[in-house]
Amino acid sequence: MTFTEKLHAAWRAADSLLCVGLDPQLDRLPAALRGERQPLLAFSKRIIEATLPHACAYKPQFAYYAAEDRLDELRETIAFLRAAAPDRLVILDAKRGDIGSTAEQYAREAFEVYGADAVTVNPYLGGDTLEPFTRFADRGVIVLCKTSNPGSAELQDLELAAGGPLYLEVARRASRDWNANGNIALVVGATYPDELARIRAAVGDLPVLVPGIGAQGGDLEATLRAGLDGAGWGLLLNSSRGILYASAGADFAAAAGRAARELQQAAAALRATILGERST
Amino acid sequence: MTFTEKLHAAWRAADSLLCVGLDPQLDRLPAALRGERQPLLAFSKRIIEATLPHACAYKPQFAYYAAEDRLDELRETIAFLRAAAPDRLVILDAKRGDIGSTAEQYAREAFEVYGADAVTVNPYLGGDTLEPFTRFADRGVIVLCKTSNPGSAELQDLELAAGGPLYLEVARRASRDWNANGNIALVVGATYPDELARIRAAVGDLPVLVPGIGAQGGDLEATLRAGLDGAGWGLLLNSSRGILYASAGADFAAAAGRAARELQQAAAALRATILGERST
Repeated sequence: MTFTEKLHAAWRAADSLLCVGLDPQLDRLPAALRGERQPLLAFSKRIIEATLPHACAYKPQFAYYAAEDRLDELRETIAFLRAAAPDRLVILDAKRGDIGSTAEQYAREAFEVYGADAVTVNPYLGGDTLEPFTRFADRGVIVLCKTSNPGSAELQDLELAAGGPLYLEVARRASRDWNANGNIALVVGATYPDELARIRAAVGDLPVLVPGIGAQGGDLEATLRAGLDGAGWGLLLNSSRGILYASAGADFAAAAGRAARELQQAAAALRATILGERST
Repeated sequence: MTFTEKLHAAWRAADSLLCVGLDPQLDRLPAALRGERQPLLAFSKRIIEATLPHACAYKPQFAYYAAEDRLDELRETIAFLRAAAPDRLVILDAKRGDIGSTAEQYAREAFEVYGADAVTVNPYLGGDTLEPFTRFADRGVIVLCKTSNPGSAELQDLELAAGGPLYLEVARRASRDWNANGNIALVVGATYPDELARIRAAVGDLPVLVPGIGAQGGDLEATLRAGLDGAGWGLLLNSSRGILYASAGADFAAAAGRAARELQQAAAALRATILGERST
């Protein structure tokens, strides 16, 4: 299956656009888990079990495992996901970016060592540095375009002499020049729905991963109106902290499940409304 | 000691601007080492011992260890460097870049898990995402500016509406806005000496790490003329493959030592000539 086919299969299997970001921060875990031998894995397993009915994808964040020197738990979390949810996508959030020979090593890290379906990458070094990733034609390469943080404007919104902001040029090149294998997607923060609308207009049905729903204050309705593709798909709505830390107590897994279900249901209802409006 | 003090101490201790990039690629190692239990470590140790008289810094590349799932060997290589060469700098080449809370984890990875003196980072997400790194005031934060690869022009050379290319705007902001703790440096490829000259003119004495000397074809004299700072320092001249793979045989370490010495001596001679010309 191509990456796009896998993505569409995951959307339909879960009937959901929700991606759960796995950012397990040791000092934010429920007290009962902190003493475990593999606390990040134990936490992630409980979160995955509770949210699985509501999510089409999981996005483990490399940095949280690396900072604790617990990359074995990242690998075991992905293995657990494979067994528990073979039809869900696993996106390694690592934001890699390096030149040719080194980019090849990072592609092997993401797709061979961790076996991810997709990886996030940084476009600043240019399209030639993304090719070692896109060469894995059945995997997704999710390019940072307009990020959710307050300072993303600093470079990404710089107006180019040829017209338009830098992030839009990244979107155009990703769609037009870097997508020979049809496995490129973009990252656009939920905190920037106007920018998402401009990007969607420029890139057709290219999939967009949207972090910043929930804890970062991204607006769900504005995101869906701006970002759904022509067929009503096209988005991976990522929530991390709003789900992982919905409760700090022993009921954290149940609370995560509820938060995921509420977000999935809210998105589904809004999506139905928007598609209804479009068809009239 | 501040990062800048450490860097000046390393330049003077080694009387060298040479940084040796540790990119140990398993299938390029001498045959005799491939059977070792820790082949990347064994190779790196031999390279370090042979090149130590000629180098002021070492730059292990995260990706080569990660792709082989041998990050323990990265850590042990850095520990070996600390013991063998306490006055040399250790630069973790990881090109990290992520938003606030995640950037904090990557800073911990580089500075706490690996204990590096400096780390390379990607500026695309904006200055707010570099602050979790620069907050470690005694460590260096080396920002990608104009990279050595052929495709670096694609985004980095885009002309801005306000004038000048993107890479120069990155250099200006790095120097002016992101350097509150005085621990920022830049990456500028040796393959672009004209761009290096424009950057040097814009950033004063900001240190610049210059990859691409040697295997990538960067010109040593042009780099020194363009990049030396006012006092005749300011550059870390990185060579990786030209030193590591100077010989594929059993004499690889001696060949690496010779290649490092030749590069260091050529740079020293050119530097003396350039400083002589400047003073007349």
